[in-house]
This record gives sequence, C-alpha cells and structure tokens, in this order.
Amino acid sequence: MGQDGLSRSGNGFPGTIEFWFDFSSGYGYLAAQEIEALGARTQRRILWRPLMLGAAFKLTGSKGLSSTPMKAEYALHDWKRIARLRNLKFRLPEGHPYTALAATRAFYWIEKRSYETAVQFACRIFDGYFHDGLDTNAPDAVAAVASTLGFDRQEVVEGLAAPDIKTITRAHCDDAIERGVFGSPFFFADGEPFWGWDRMSMMEDWLRTGGW
Amino acid sequence: MGQDGLSRSGNGFPGTIEFWFDFSSGYGYLAAQEIEALGARTQRRILWRPLMLGAAFKLTGSKGLSSTPMKAEYALHDWKRIARLRNLKFRLPEGHPYTALAATRAFYWIEKRSYETAVQFACRIFDGYFHDGLDTNAPDAVAAVASTLGFDRQEVVEGLAAPDIKTITRAHCDDAIERGVFGSPFFFADGEPFWGWDRMSMMEDWLRTGGW
Repeated sequence: MGQDGLSRSGNGFPGTIEFWFDFSSGYGYLAAQEIEALGARTQRRILWRPLMLGAAFKLTGSKGLSSTPMKAEYALHDWKRIARLRNLKFRLPEGHPYTALAATRAFYWIEKRSYETAVQFACRIFDGYFHDGLDTNAPDAVAAVASTLGFDRQEVVEGLAAPDIKTITRAHCDDAIERGVFGSPFFFADGEPFWGWDRMSMMEDWLRTGGW
Repeated sequence: MGQDGLSRSGNGFPGTIEFWFDFSSGYGYLAAQEIEALGARTQRRILWRPLMLGAAFKLTGSKGLSSTPMKAEYALHDWKRIARLRNLKFRLPEGHPYTALAATRAFYWIEKRSYETAVQFACRIFDGYFHDGLDTNAPDAVAAVASTLGFDRQEVVEGLAAPDIKTITRAHCDDAIERGVFGSPFFFADGEPFWGWDRMSMMEDWLRTGGW
C-alpha cells in the first residue's frame, strides 16, 4: 500500500475483487460471509473496503433501506429469510442504522498495520453489530473489538482520531463514490461493477467466463 | 375474474406466482422473458400484473432507477449486460422512462376479454418499448399493438378511456402498494414476496423446497 493509503483501491486490476460495504448494511453483512469463498473459487484476491454510504445517499436522493418506507419492511424480512437459509444469526440493533464512522476508521487504522487483521476485524464488527448490538460508532466499543485481535484499546481510540486516518477514510469514501459506488455491497470484479448480495453468482459467472 | 376485476390478485394462494411490473422497467422486461418458464418448472400459474410505480415512488421517496443519479448509469450498464447474456435486444427509448398509463389500462381492458391475450399483449408492449421506442402512453400506439392480436383499434382507444377500466387499473395499483409492492419486478410466490429480476432463482428455490 502506498503512502497515501489508497493504492490498494481504485485500480480495478484483473485478479482482484473489490468488496465495498457499509458496516450497517444487512446485505453487506451477508456478502461478507461468502465473499472469501467466492474469491477462492475464482482465484481472485478480495479487497475489503468499508465506506459510509451517507454521502452516496445524498447524491442519489435516497436513504438507507431501513430508513425507507415499504423497503424497510421488505429488507428486514429478506435479511431474516437469507439468514435462515445460511444458518446465520441476524438481529438488527436498536436504533439501526448506525453511522459506523468509528468502525470504518478503525479498519483503515488497522490496515496500516496488517491488511489481513483488518479483514478479521471487519468480520468481528459485522458479527458484533448484527448479532449483539455493537455500537459501531463508539470508539471504545470498536477499540474493544480491536483488542480481541491484539491491539491496545487506547492506541486504537487515539488512532481513530488521528488526522491521517480521518483523511484516508474520507478519501476512500470519496473515491468509491467517484467510481460509482452507491450501495452496499458493491463489487468491482476485474473492474466490472456488480451491486448487491444477490449478484454474487452473476459476478462469479462473469469471472469464470471472462465476461460477455 | 370477479366483477370488480380484482379477484385474480391479492390472494397469494398457493399455486400462483404474481408478477407485478411496470412497462417502463428494464428489469421487468428482463423478468418477462423468463417468468413463464420458471412457472412451468415449478408448476405455478403466473399472474401478470402491470402497474405504474409512480405512486409507490412517492411513498418511498424514490424515483425510478433511470431518474436517479449514479443508479441510472449502473442500471443501463447492467440491463445491457444481462441482455447480451440472454441474447435479447435492449434499447431505451428517447425520453425513457415513460408513464405507461395507456398500455397498463389496455392490459386490463384486454384481460376482461381474455387473460391469455393480455399476457401476449404485455409481451408485445415490452418488446415495442425496449426494442423500438413504442410510446406506451399513447392510446393510438398502444391500440396498434392490440390490433396485432385481433382487437379493433378504435374499440381499444375507447376502452382505455372508459371509467371502469380507469377504476380497475387504479385499484390494481393501490392494491399492489398496500401489499408492499415498491419496485419492478415484484413477485408473490405462494404469497411470499420477492423483489427483483435477480431474485428469480431464489424464488424458484423457495417454491421447490416449500420455503425455509
């Protein structure tokens, strides 16, 4: 990764699936369960990229699913239905959706130390949020999750507030939006965009066949 | 069908897949190509139900995909990609999306005479719109399509303007929204809701397994 913290993303090079997601996204959580296996099957490296969708929602004039009449009910029904199918826990926290700013910044702080650990961290954040009501915007709660991966809580809390991490996080969000990311999960597979958990099978077909 | 023109819909009885769609919906057009075969595989009757999504968009605070920044570009790319995969023609008319009021009313006018012919009509409307720029809100253009199925143009034009057809059309739209339809295509398979072209395979799994 380059000094600017951005060189891992934005290239769309063959051999990579970029996995953009919001930590508060039900479909993002579901995609996170399956994306590494898909990468293994298609011999692609997964690049995990949390972002906060709020800025994209402003551009599209949308709100998140859970804040949208009619869609909110359907989405909850659908998440639970998929979770049953996959034998996953699924429980929305009180006050969902959160703005997962602390968790997102923590991901990029950890990534500067170890990308692989950042991915583990992302999985634990998703589980914490969708199983146990973890407050993904509380630096202390997020640091507690990081501590299960060996980081010092106080260092994490201070790291989240550091200007370079704020800058990197914002740059990733801006970069994603500029490249057309408006929902979660959103993938670039060898550069080709796919939106939605329910498009993972098409993305896999695309990669297997070389596209059409 | 009952006197009120509604008894075919709204029951969600086993044995039926309700297929709700807007004639201006790219994903609705794509679903229309595949839904009858899916019904045959799962031994379900398909109930075709055109509606106009405008009223639902007001409730959800959304616009159609093609009127939404960022999503419009992605959707067009995606429709063309799917059309290539399926060897289908796909060309958006100038001025897309149209409000397909005349075509929707004509469907329900024809249905009073023959449900099967109304389905044929729906397919021709979709093809006309997504191949050749058919004006789905022009009574004359819609009547010309109906005439290819043996109806008298003038009768169709007059039929569209008749109070009972206006009432039936509006009642179907209201009924759909009340039952949670907010997008196109939207299915009820033995009563279970599925939103989106890309959920047809899950719907098929649901029907094959009896749900989960």
